Amino acid sequence: MTCEEKTMKSERIYEGKIVNLRIDTVELPDKKYSKREIVEHPGAVGIIPITEDGSIILVEQYRKPVEKKLIEIPAGKIEINEEPKETAIRELIEETGYKAGKMEYILEFYTSPGFTNEKIYLFLATELEYVEENPGEDEYIQVKKIPIEKLVDMIDKGEIIDSKTIISIYFAMKYLKAK
Amino acid sequence: MTCEEKTMKSERIYEGKIVNLRIDTVELPDKKYSKREIVEHPGAVGIIPITEDGSIILVEQYRKPVEKKLIEIPAGKIEINEEPKETAIRELIEETGYKAGKMEYILEFYTSPGFTNEKIYLFLATELEYVEENPGEDEYIQVKKIPIEKLVDMIDKGEIIDSKTIISIYFAMKYLKAK
Repeated sequence: MTCEEKTMKSERIYEGKIVNLRIDTVELPDKKYSKREIVEHPGAVGIIPITEDGSIILVEQYRKPVEKKLIEIPAGKIEINEEPKETAIRELIEETGYKAGKMEYILEFYTSPGFTNEKIYLFLATELEYVEENPGEDEYIQVKKIPIEKLVDMIDKGEIIDSKTIISIYFAMKYLKAK
Repeated sequence: MTCEEKTMKSERIYEGKIVNLRIDTVELPDKKYSKREIVEHPGAVGIIPITEDGSIILVEQYRKPVEKKLIEIPAGKIEINEEPKETAIRELIEETGYKAGKMEYILEFYTSPGFTNEKIYLFLATELEYVEENPGEDEYIQVKKIPIEKLVDMIDKGEIIDSKTIISIYFAMKYLKAK
């Protein structure tokens, strides 16, 4: 049996810049109570910028939560009153300096639905044009262009370890084969 | 330039059953300060149980943070003093009733490194044997066996929307093609 969990009580622990934390007390179908720790997130977009010659434009940046530099697809939080597609267009230019002639929605997913409602909307960016000499307000991002076959290797070697980026590389592989 | 972020102050907001929340004040390379909201997570495993006939064993359960029933690969939090592989063996039996003759580590990734250190270790489970009539302590999980080609369709249709499950299906597709 799969059942919903009715909220009996909801306690807000923290409201932040990017995430909020709340604890819900839920009633299970057997009438027992349980607690759910829930991290609220406004949602984000990820962009797969594919070049004519079959490479992906990626960014490398330091990620404090994991204390590591990671290679990821360009991505960003959805701002208030922003449509995911607008976020995708904005973030791609800000982070990489590239403008997409075509920006297509492909799929969406939850990053870790056991404790957070964060959803990522993935977009495919093609017909890329370099428009910005100094991308981003954030100078701590490095832009990289890497061929898709090399990226598949980098997943196998543990050099790409970000979930949205792994999904994007597998998707791009499938997309390029179908072309 | 990609640089590390030095922790100047660290404030613990919440310590929970599954996650903790802390706010770090970091010093950027230009000496400016910034805040980082960080959700600490003990890490988890995900298991890709592939049957002889090319299906994956999945579980469907209600996920409070997203208020939806989701279809996911079997998965679970790593307990204290547990090796990821032990977690994988334990969780597979608990959630699905299947025991794996072979449980191989394949890769690991961060679910959302912008705000959490949660890492998932993925394992491939083969030589499956059904050993448990009443899987799990958790009666609210439904076990499903779905052919891999159908799962690829389900991603495209938005019926599979969990990141670790999408990665697993793409990986399984690649694995079965290479066999």
